[in-house]
Amino acid sequence: MKLLEDIILEKGEILEGNILKVDSFMNHQIDPLLMEKLGNEFAEHFKNKKITKVLTVESSGIAPALMCAYKLQVPLVFLKKTQPSTMRHPLISEVFSYTKNKAYTLCMEKQFLNNDDHVLFIDDFLANGEAFRGVEDIVNQSGAKLEGVGIVIEKSFQKGHEYILRQGYDLYSLAEIKAFDHGKIVF
Amino acid sequence: MKLLEDIILEKGEILEGNILKVDSFMNHQIDPLLMEKLGNEFAEHFKNKKITKVLTVESSGIAPALMCAYKLQVPLVFLKKTQPSTMRHPLISEVFSYTKNKAYTLCMEKQFLNNDDHVLFIDDFLANGEAFRGVEDIVNQSGAKLEGVGIVIEKSFQKGHEYILRQGYDLYSLAEIKAFDHGKIVF
Repeated sequence: MKLLEDIILEKGEILEGNILKVDSFMNHQIDPLLMEKLGNEFAEHFKNKKITKVLTVESSGIAPALMCAYKLQVPLVFLKKTQPSTMRHPLISEVFSYTKNKAYTLCMEKQFLNNDDHVLFIDDFLANGEAFRGVEDIVNQSGAKLEGVGIVIEKSFQKGHEYILRQGYDLYSLAEIKAFDHGKIVF
Repeated sequence: MKLLEDIILEKGEILEGNILKVDSFMNHQIDPLLMEKLGNEFAEHFKNKKITKVLTVESSGIAPALMCAYKLQVPLVFLKKTQPSTMRHPLISEVFSYTKNKAYTLCMEKQFLNNDDHVLFIDDFLANGEAFRGVEDIVNQSGAKLEGVGIVIEKSFQKGHEYILRQGYDLYSLAEIKAFDHGKIVF
């Protein structure tokens, strides 16, 4: 998506360790008009998959996923990283993030996904795919079918890309970073 | 807002300790069409305040706040509950939640609010107002002006309501719970 690539080049910052910081339009400050365009793009790509629920992970995935769910006119469910005391029948998956070097638990109330659901997973970033494997685990536990994976910004040279394709999922990334070349982004 | 009150009565659950659970349409599963209606309602109420930024707190505030920011065509900034290692100039406020009986830190990158900003704070719930006081503290540190407070569901018999009015802010709640009467909601 050319528009998104241009915004990343203009406003993104590359930090030590090839961390791409997009705090000014997606991960902390959010540009709602851009989020609508991203959501529409995902909705258009996956419109024939009979999606019944959009799934994301709190917090940065919520904005693009909400706009996609709005366009598809289906509910959005966001997986939580800490389990609320009021959760009755949690589906749980343990995730270890190599990027952040820490473990956390993804969880979801069981009642919000079932056998009949066709799920579209939307997230802001894909790198090594640890969070994705947690999501996949929870969707599998629920009995629902994962129909597609929409990623706003992907570092396709890291492990997540290959894993998702190998599992046979329809992966659609709006900006695919193929490499960092001396501090510059190569799409 | 009659529509919201009806949805709360239909889908909300009252748990022990008068905790209102709205997981099926706002706090875990999200109804995007409802969020748009809530966002539009906030935008309409605050449209003459020359809002330049909408502010919320992760995670459950993001959906209604995003729709409001979309309608007002201004950026949304969400305050974080854990400070990312990549945050350069954090504005920080310590919050103790009596509801959850735990302390946490709200933080925001300084560059996203300044003297010229007119801020609308949107959140999903207001009860004792602990989170609100943290938000107010951070807005004050930034030099921006807090022009209004939009709350989706308010328990107006708890301390937050009075505190916000006493400070002189324009408080607009879409559903105002005045009491719980033997397990029933009184609007």
